[in-house]
Amino acid sequence: MVLQLIPMIKTTDFKSIADRYKVIFFDSFGVIKNYWGLVPGMRDTFDYLEANQKEYYIVTNDASRSPQQLAASFVKLGLEMITADKIISSGMLAKEYLDLKVDGGSVAFLGTDDSAHYIENAGLHTIPVRDITDENINQVNGLVFMDDEGFNWFSDLNKAVNLLRKRNIPAIVANTDFAYPLNMNDVAIAVGALANMIEHVVGKRFIRFGKPDSQMFMFAYDLVREKMEISKKDILMVGDTLHTDILGGNKFGLDTVLVFSGNVKPEDAETAISSTGIVPTYICDTAVIKID
Amino acid sequence: MVLQLIPMIKTTDFKSIADRYKVIFFDSFGVIKNYWGLVPGMRDTFDYLEANQKEYYIVTNDASRSPQQLAASFVKLGLEMITADKIISSGMLAKEYLDLKVDGGSVAFLGTDDSAHYIENAGLHTIPVRDITDENINQVNGLVFMDDEGFNWFSDLNKAVNLLRKRNIPAIVANTDFAYPLNMNDVAIAVGALANMIEHVVGKRFIRFGKPDSQMFMFAYDLVREKMEISKKDILMVGDTLHTDILGGNKFGLDTVLVFSGNVKPEDAETAISSTGIVPTYICDTAVIKID
Amino acid sequence: MVLQLIPMIKTTDFKSIADRYKVIFFDSFGVIKNYWGLVPGMRDTFDYLEANQKEYYIVTNDASRSPQQLAASFVKLGLEMITADKIISSGMLAKEYLDLKVDGGSVAFLGTDDSAHYIENAGLHTIPVRDITDENINQVNGLVFMDDEGFNWFSDLNKAVNLLRKRNIPAIVANTDFAYPLNMNDVAIAVGALANMIEHVVGKRFIRFGKPDSQMFMFAYDLVREKMEISKKDILMVGDTLHTDILGGNKFGLDTVLVFSGNVKPEDAETAISSTGIVPTYICDTAVIKID
Amino acid sequence: MVLQLIPMIKTTDFKSIADRYKVIFFDSFGVIKNYWGLVPGMRDTFDYLEANQKEYYIVTNDASRSPQQLAASFVKLGLEMITADKIISSGMLAKEYLDLKVDGGSVAFLGTDDSAHYIENAGLHTIPVRDITDENINQVNGLVFMDDEGFNWFSDLNKAVNLLRKRNIPAIVANTDFAYPLNMNDVAIAVGALANMIEHVVGKRFIRFGKPDSQMFMFAYDLVREKMEISKKDILMVGDTLHTDILGGNKFGLDTVLVFSGNVKPEDAETAISSTGIVPTYICDTAVIKID
Repeated sequence: MVLQLIPMIKTTDFKSIADRYKVIFFDSFGVIKNYWGLVPGMRDTFDYLEANQKEYYIVTNDASRSPQQLAASFVKLGLEMITADKIISSGMLAKEYLDLKVDGGSVAFLGTDDSAHYIENAGLHTIPVRDITDENINQVNGLVFMDDEGFNWFSDLNKAVNLLRKRNIPAIVANTDFAYPLNMNDVAIAVGALANMIEHVVGKRFIRFGKPDSQMFMFAYDLVREKMEISKKDILMVGDTLHTDILGGNKFGLDTVLVFSGNVKPEDAETAISSTGIVPTYICDTAVIKID
Repeated sequence: MVLQLIPMIKTTDFKSIADRYKVIFFDSFGVIKNYWGLVPGMRDTFDYLEANQKEYYIVTNDASRSPQQLAASFVKLGLEMITADKIISSGMLAKEYLDLKVDGGSVAFLGTDDSAHYIENAGLHTIPVRDITDENINQVNGLVFMDDEGFNWFSDLNKAVNLLRKRNIPAIVANTDFAYPLNMNDVAIAVGALANMIEHVVGKRFIRFGKPDSQMFMFAYDLVREKMEISKKDILMVGDTLHTDILGGNKFGLDTVLVFSGNVKPEDAETAISSTGIVPTYICDTAVIKID
Repeated sequence: MVLQLIPMIKTTDFKSIADRYKVIFFDSFGVIKNYWGLVPGMRDTFDYLEANQKEYYIVTNDASRSPQQLAASFVKLGLEMITADKIISSGMLAKEYLDLKVDGGSVAFLGTDDSAHYIENAGLHTIPVRDITDENINQVNGLVFMDDEGFNWFSDLNKAVNLLRKRNIPAIVANTDFAYPLNMNDVAIAVGALANMIEHVVGKRFIRFGKPDSQMFMFAYDLVREKMEISKKDILMVGDTLHTDILGGNKFGLDTVLVFSGNVKPEDAETAISSTGIVPTYICDTAVIKID
Repeated sequence: MVLQLIPMIKTTDFKSIADRYKVIFFDSFGVIKNYWGLVPGMRDTFDYLEANQKEYYIVTNDASRSPQQLAASFVKLGLEMITADKIISSGMLAKEYLDLKVDGGSVAFLGTDDSAHYIENAGLHTIPVRDITDENINQVNGLVFMDDEGFNWFSDLNKAVNLLRKRNIPAIVANTDFAYPLNMNDVAIAVGALANMIEHVVGKRFIRFGKPDSQMFMFAYDLVREKMEISKKDILMVGDTLHTDILGGNKFGLDTVLVFSGNVKPEDAETAISSTGIVPTYICDTAVIKID
């Protein structure tokens, strides 16, 4: 066994970076919380931002719950300042799409009933894929992939394939992630991977919402501009995932911070960055701001 | 509504083609049988081949059963001449791979117990993915995707992902098909699509067996050459699917026949061929040879 | 030769659709002009829009020239009302990205000198890939794919590969198209296809601007909102290409019109739509509005 | 700057492995030679194999020259024992395909005249893509991608695209590599990458020859079996590239050796193997056998 010395990337203190921006966008999982719960010290970060009147938003590829439910989960972690109006989720974009583009009838969904309830509106009701029958299939005007839970994969994924073969309707993917961490050792297949599989089987183009797509950042940017005069130079995006948070933030023209509280380990950072070509503006251990 | 006249491809009589070759390879589903049962008249085809001492083989992407079980299913359709030694399945290649490349321990599988029983051998035992535990995971030296049935998709696909993250072992796909027809209206997701999804989630390269890969044709070609002096010019491949049967046959250097008893409808043939660039040597309505 | 009757899609008169919207986004090539020049009658369309005070924008994946140069090309076609401020090009997004994200040094480019001149700014100068040397390579802070012309493919594409292997810098694709029509019979490989090839060779993620990406639509939407109170429901996107104009417009939440003056022929429309699953809100022969 | 200790993979002596097999397949570039010339000591390896009457073959994705020309290049390196009959190239498979599947007319090619001369035969003549005209295009019955040199990329790649749009003919890729090393610092785009780009632009399926495809190994295996009774267990594949040599050898059922004289550096081996899931049976520094 031969040993070799390799350099490890040097990180910067998050506070010194955050101080330079007027608005901060945070990814949720891997930045604010992870599978152990709240990332220790993140309460201080939000206290500091509040005290210094900095705007912040949570920009998350999570379509399993409404912004209200997501906010409730932050309250449970002791972050009562993260209210529903500070949350931009890919589910919100899916909902906007359905509001604008599906005129009537019903929208079939794969996911929990909670996720479906959120996208319902006055003119449109939702139906779980399992309840599609020969009688109601012609009223189905869209299919939405919301969450990997809440349905039987074998029967309902097969049913979704045949729905898309019989009805020429849009298929919307409200969470593009392929996997998410369950605990320190295990990951779970996310609905984005299921949607990709169905897309290949039926050979049609699906409509995807979620980072790295610019639409998420634009949605947040629009919200900020309603409150204050601002340019993209004033906004910082903080994330733990190179190909969603950092790629998407970079492309939208924002400065970006990669943190090590989630997907990327410090010792893998250099290889990950140079092999993907996705380069964050800064690298920090965590997004924690220590208050003296 | 405007009407337009379009030409339909002219087909050739299968007998006039078959007479020119010494050996014929047939795909199974969509050529010999389909979801209604035996393609009417196919019994005559095999009687004719037997009477004229032409060699034939069934070359099928079916890993759900052993050649013996596949032969038994042909007997049920009244084709008792199609014995196990005439069947080349992608499952046989998976079995050969395991015999050659996995030295001991166990092989985890996704599929029915029938499919697994077939790949067992003296030194190697099989274990369903659902039975993997922290205790036995270090004895698992391979993962085989055999069939889309026989396991719980939600729990076992997730378990397969984590197995491949923890153990650096080969993943073998014994059936590369993405879907198969259930009846005239519906298709089902095949194990090839499930394997593709897992491959993307874990980011590793899987090993695939099945048409259009040349290894299937080589296996059949080797069997024929043991019996007779022959060249590739003497062999005809008959199939209903452009991107497996026809592409694979063409690439191996065989003449090919596309038939309309399966995946491709006569009215779609011209578009399908010109848009894929996969051109069969001949086109026939079916592989039926009428005996007077 | 057998003949078969197939139905052809029924189209709607463009004026009856346009009248329902306050703002119209037009693709350029295949809608306003094609390789024969101006689509006959399009002058009437823009006269009508001007007379009725409807806002319109040209939203184009063309990074080969500045908006001013694109406007000049419309003047030559007799469309002097299409001024530079009405043009949104993917090149503008590339320029914005460089302004925001590349701080100094130089940006290497593949394309004509015209295309490069446009993206220059006070702090950033451009350098053709052919002029990169061992001496100046460390000052290169980005690579932009602007156009398929203006460089030697063999020497400069190879040079671009090695630049990206030696410098961990962003690669920006200012036109995602794979091909464009040269005349009625021939197409040409576009810079988007060249960029894709380089991306696969070096294995890094490039940053792409252009339809169907939402950022183009957002840029246009922002411009309109500066002038008037408007919602996405008031905007119509007109295009000739399903996977850029129609998919992008749909995803952004706009109603969409497919026209037959470009990529899609009337007799192929039904197959193209059902095989891709990209469904326009309306279909028109052209975007021509006849004025009586 | 923090330093961290990482383990490096332990290698085995190549002689102790080679002694266990009757036949050895060698990749050429990166194993026998590299851009500095002969890998020092490889002459000893072949002397040893000759002295011990072990069979060996060179299995190479090189379609730029005939086996005779490739053998001549080994003579220049002092390896006169590597005669043309010991060389299996992907160009040989392309030639076999053309002999079997293209009946007359001409075959267009992209590559040097040398590469084209080799695939000519009695009934078939070759034509450089640049010489295709409206008069002779209807006699063109195939297009072969042989080499990245010998043609004008801009004009001839565009011409190839339009050939494939006008003629429904097979496109054959005789070298699937995406890049090859030019010297210690630089790589060059290989013809496999150009072919991939054209395939995406025209949307048709090309026919590829070369490792990791089984057909190369089968070709070599057939040659060996003509000389001796042998099983796959008796053959060792030696290569420097995981996704061609090792993946292909593994899939064909051979034991495999990864060497460090080419693509993979010792310090990257562990990451490369675990991230791709392509696991060689053995790892050696080089394929050198030292003779005392």
